Amino acid sequence: MDFEKLAQLDAADPLAHCRAQFVIPADTVYLDGNSLGLLSHATQARVAEVTAGQWGQDGIKSWNKHQWVQLPQRVGEKLAPLIGAAPGQVVCCDSISVNLFKALSAALSLVKQQDEGARPRHQVLSTRDNFPTDLYMVQGLSSIVGSERCELQLADESELLANPQAFITEQTAVVLITEVNFRTGRRLPVAKLIEHAHRVGARVIVDLAHSAGAMPVALDAWQADFAVGCTYKYLNGGPGAPAFIYVAKRHLPAISQPLAGWFGHANPFAFEADYEAAPGIEKMLSGTPAVLAMAAVDAALDSFTGVDLQQLRAKSVQLSELFLDLLESTGCANEFRCISPAQSHERGSQLSFAHDDAYAICQALIDAKIIADFRAPNYLRVGFTPLYTRFTDIGLAVERLAQIMADKSYLAPQFQQRHKVT
Amino acid sequence: MDFEKLAQLDAADPLAHCRAQFVIPADTVYLDGNSLGLLSHATQARVAEVTAGQWGQDGIKSWNKHQWVQLPQRVGEKLAPLIGAAPGQVVCCDSISVNLFKALSAALSLVKQQDEGARPRHQVLSTRDNFPTDLYMVQGLSSIVGSERCELQLADESELLANPQAFITEQTAVVLITEVNFRTGRRLPVAKLIEHAHRVGARVIVDLAHSAGAMPVALDAWQADFAVGCTYKYLNGGPGAPAFIYVAKRHLPAISQPLAGWFGHANPFAFEADYEAAPGIEKMLSGTPAVLAMAAVDAALDSFTGVDLQQLRAKSVQLSELFLDLLESTGCANEFRCISPAQSHERGSQLSFAHDDAYAICQALIDAKIIADFRAPNYLRVGFTPLYTRFTDIGLAVERLAQIMADKSYLAPQFQQRHKVT
Repeated sequence: MDFEKLAQLDAADPLAHCRAQFVIPADTVYLDGNSLGLLSHATQARVAEVTAGQWGQDGIKSWNKHQWVQLPQRVGEKLAPLIGAAPGQVVCCDSISVNLFKALSAALSLVKQQDEGARPRHQVLSTRDNFPTDLYMVQGLSSIVGSERCELQLADESELLANPQAFITEQTAVVLITEVNFRTGRRLPVAKLIEHAHRVGARVIVDLAHSAGAMPVALDAWQADFAVGCTYKYLNGGPGAPAFIYVAKRHLPAISQPLAGWFGHANPFAFEADYEAAPGIEKMLSGTPAVLAMAAVDAALDSFTGVDLQQLRAKSVQLSELFLDLLESTGCANEFRCISPAQSHERGSQLSFAHDDAYAICQALIDAKIIADFRAPNYLRVGFTPLYTRFTDIGLAVERLAQIMADKSYLAPQFQQRHKVT
Repeated sequence: MDFEKLAQLDAADPLAHCRAQFVIPADTVYLDGNSLGLLSHATQARVAEVTAGQWGQDGIKSWNKHQWVQLPQRVGEKLAPLIGAAPGQVVCCDSISVNLFKALSAALSLVKQQDEGARPRHQVLSTRDNFPTDLYMVQGLSSIVGSERCELQLADESELLANPQAFITEQTAVVLITEVNFRTGRRLPVAKLIEHAHRVGARVIVDLAHSAGAMPVALDAWQADFAVGCTYKYLNGGPGAPAFIYVAKRHLPAISQPLAGWFGHANPFAFEADYEAAPGIEKMLSGTPAVLAMAAVDAALDSFTGVDLQQLRAKSVQLSELFLDLLESTGCANEFRCISPAQSHERGSQLSFAHDDAYAICQALIDAKIIADFRAPNYLRVGFTPLYTRFTDIGLAVERLAQIMADKSYLAPQFQQRHKVT
């Protein structure tokens, strides 16, 4: 492994300075930012300040004094430029699952209005290999409104891309598409799918869980209708951090969503018995914002200040290409089947490898302080976070992986024994 | 004000030692634990540990190493004895609003099964003066399933109590009742209402937002069907902390809920495309747990270790009776109309007073470091948290209130000017 050359790449990296903002676990190469991003020093300080300084010292007064009450909107506006959204279209709240339920309901209500008179369409098209919670939320909504008003239809990802018109038809109400596949890292051509959907009057929900903070996203330019996303992966908002939801401005006056909690009310502090939705994006809020967790997201987003997203993407591509090249050079590449697309523009910011012993190999890597992760049934995933992953890290990771494959240390019983992983 | 006598009461208080567990804002009397409970030292330490020590040092490994993955259940089990629930019936998750939606859907699904064949009942009975988010969630569910399957029916609280049979009828599917009214502090006879409901085959959801941590609650003994509650009031879990949900064990096999996120799946880490609900209380979970916020709740609950809830309730009653007595003795009691019930057993752990200038009086009190709160249209609320409120605090609060009323300092422009309050 030519670490001198890798050090040169790091020295020339225009984003190299970003790494110092993060708490890097000691002697560790962290390639799991696609599952849980790292803590930044600013986030650590903010959580301490909000806990001891604000809640501890000012109690209830903090809602106004420290503007807790505006957190969902403020964090939403900070997120907006990272996903190509003009102001007034994004809020931070709830989990991505709960936000999917809102977006689905809102999209169906929109299609119903648009199809008025006619029998409203009810098909929600998604990909079989989408992240399960996306599919579950469609099934959940369907379970209470009935399959005649919401019915999940699954397409094979490759078949959908090869022939979108065959799947996105006049029967389609909503297309629910995740830009980057969580298993394979495959990046779908969202703009193209939105075009197809709009041509037949369907609405699109884009799941940006594996996109936001890893690459430029252009929701407004794509004419996306709705989007949801996660803040705890590439946005480093913390474990289980509140998610976000985007609704295109043009749809805001017409839509409604059923999780009509008091924070989505036009005038929450009037405590009226009748729900009246807020006119703007606030109508997507539900209960009281999770202040500690949302403050962490707010602080985490500051590490993107001044970061050029094209540059971020370029580094992400460079890191993954380097990983593939080095793996090839070690001679162990042929032990794995790379299930991520060969072309970098068709990938997100991760690589996935199939191997019968993927679970044990992942455990052996973690034991060697290379943090990768495993996804059922037999995939090893490595994620690249351009803000803190160094080229040197890629060298270290591949070197140790090659070692593990060479000495077959992953066959040791302690690595084979399964436990719950996320 | 006889502060010597109050100091004696504090000295004799068997819960006096609990106060040292909390961060008490300097020179402040905090009577707003019914809105946002105070930070405990243990919570502050835990949040720091989970942030820097766990997330910061162990990243993704923490899900197993620090048992983040079990947080919703673990916190639920810690909460259970405070609300009279045997194990396996409570989880901590989401907001109270979102949990209400799940409980409502589950209760309606249960009634539908029980009424099979017949036209299912659809009325959800609540009180007009319930906390608005409770009513909004019924309206939200109704907006997507239709009023023929979910229809909100409002009763006047006093009329309902005077004549429950007139409102809880064979048409009633679900009774949604909050034990303690957020405006008036009135405590409703939940056990009796549950009896009435069960007699006609209706199911009951109890909202414990203003009960949990303030008084003994006996969900199992009451034969409650469902309950939801808040952890950021008397349970001191932190601003916007995750809420809880209870489902009686006897209902768990039969019910389903539509916010079917991956954490509610029987086998979340198998990443299957089809939703299969977990068999137990975990089926009420939805998305990824909010770890930082839930860890705060977990730590906060430790301040109840060894606390006798009957003793807690007795002190709460003593504190509120003392407040009323002292207010009477200052001669300014007649300037207010106490809208809380006169009988202590009919009250929660707060007192509410109507006054045309309630908003300004509250601001003047806060300025004098007596933290009370205001609720529209014209109520001043004072809450008593037996874990940290001292008898001396009540003396200080009433003394300053009497002063403000005597010198009419609340008429000053800075106190009259309104801003958003929570």
